[in-house]
Amino acid sequence: RSSIEQTGARREGILDIFGNIVEKCPLITGAIWSKIPFQVYLAVEECVSEFIDSLSSSGKEGILRCHPDLCGRDLTRGTLTEESQNEQSQAGLTSLNPMEREILNHLNLQYKEKFGFTFVICAKMSDKNKITQELNSRLQNDPCQELQNGIDQVKKICHLRIQDIFFHGKIPTKL
Amino acid sequence: RSSIEQTGARREGILDIFGNIVEKCPLITGAIWSKIPFQVYLAVEECVSEFIDSLSSSGKEGILRCHPDLCGRDLTRGTLTEESQNEQSQAGLTSLNPMEREILNHLNLQYKEKFGFTFVICAKMSDKNKITQELNSRLQNDPCQELQNGIDQVKKICHLRIQDIFFHGKIPTKL
Repeated sequence: RSSIEQTGARREGILDIFGNIVEKCPLITGAIWSKIPFQVYLAVEECVSEFIDSLSSSGKEGILRCHPDLCGRDLTRGTLTEESQNEQSQAGLTSLNPMEREILNHLNLQYKEKFGFTFVICAKMSDKNKITQELNSRLQNDPCQELQNGIDQVKKICHLRIQDIFFHGKIPTKL
Repeated sequence: RSSIEQTGARREGILDIFGNIVEKCPLITGAIWSKIPFQVYLAVEECVSEFIDSLSSSGKEGILRCHPDLCGRDLTRGTLTEESQNEQSQAGLTSLNPMEREILNHLNLQYKEKFGFTFVICAKMSDKNKITQELNSRLQNDPCQELQNGIDQVKKICHLRIQDIFFHGKIPTKL
């Protein structure tokens, strides 16, 4: 194989590996693509963070809307990405009792109704009780502040997903 | 069901329907989400176009990198989205002879090597011979001009995908 072919093939793999470090947003991975395999993992995080910050408010909202509800439709249907499934499961959201599920679903709907985007929280750094408390409390925020809160959580989730790839040999979802 | 629940459910469907009007970029659909079901289809196109134009060069490159190669790995493996499969098939790319395939693969690699992003063309408005000619000719461009050419093609593809949804009842890929 020529060097052109090798480079092409290597680069083609980048989206396979890093395509879902921000849930269902391979556009972001594609945008920071030229920086990825040549730098250490902290740089990947930094590049993602910078790119997200460069987006308009509607772009940031777009990212939040790519995220599934916690304990929502995709979990019920089994159509979560592997990463989301792990995150929600680790926070205990796959084994809620009917009452807990009802409360969470109701709060999620209230949240989406108020803000127009999905409630996002780094589930792995939380648990089912803290998530409900946090959702209740974040419902009180103003939209601007809450958009920033959601994006901060996206970055935490991204941090853990990158760690999983680099240090725990997790096989990422290919989008 | 309360009106909150109805609104939540209706909105949840938007990404199902419009999530792939720009290949594997539900972020874009999410970004223009508040405009979607309340306006005519031309407005959807306009909003997509405006949002894409608002992105940095690296964001635009990110979009191009979400697109599959023509007659590339995803076609061979059967992992193209339904929309891409139709587009490539209609242009005759699923029935190339070995020589034609070899030439196209080689040009695609040269293109990616020169520009660092995927060659994108609205295959439905072209055919296999025109595509090879166009690829040969676009290889001569400078990177800035070629980024714009790629994005113009993304918008044409998006135009046809939106038409398919509104007028031909096509069932879109759920990402």
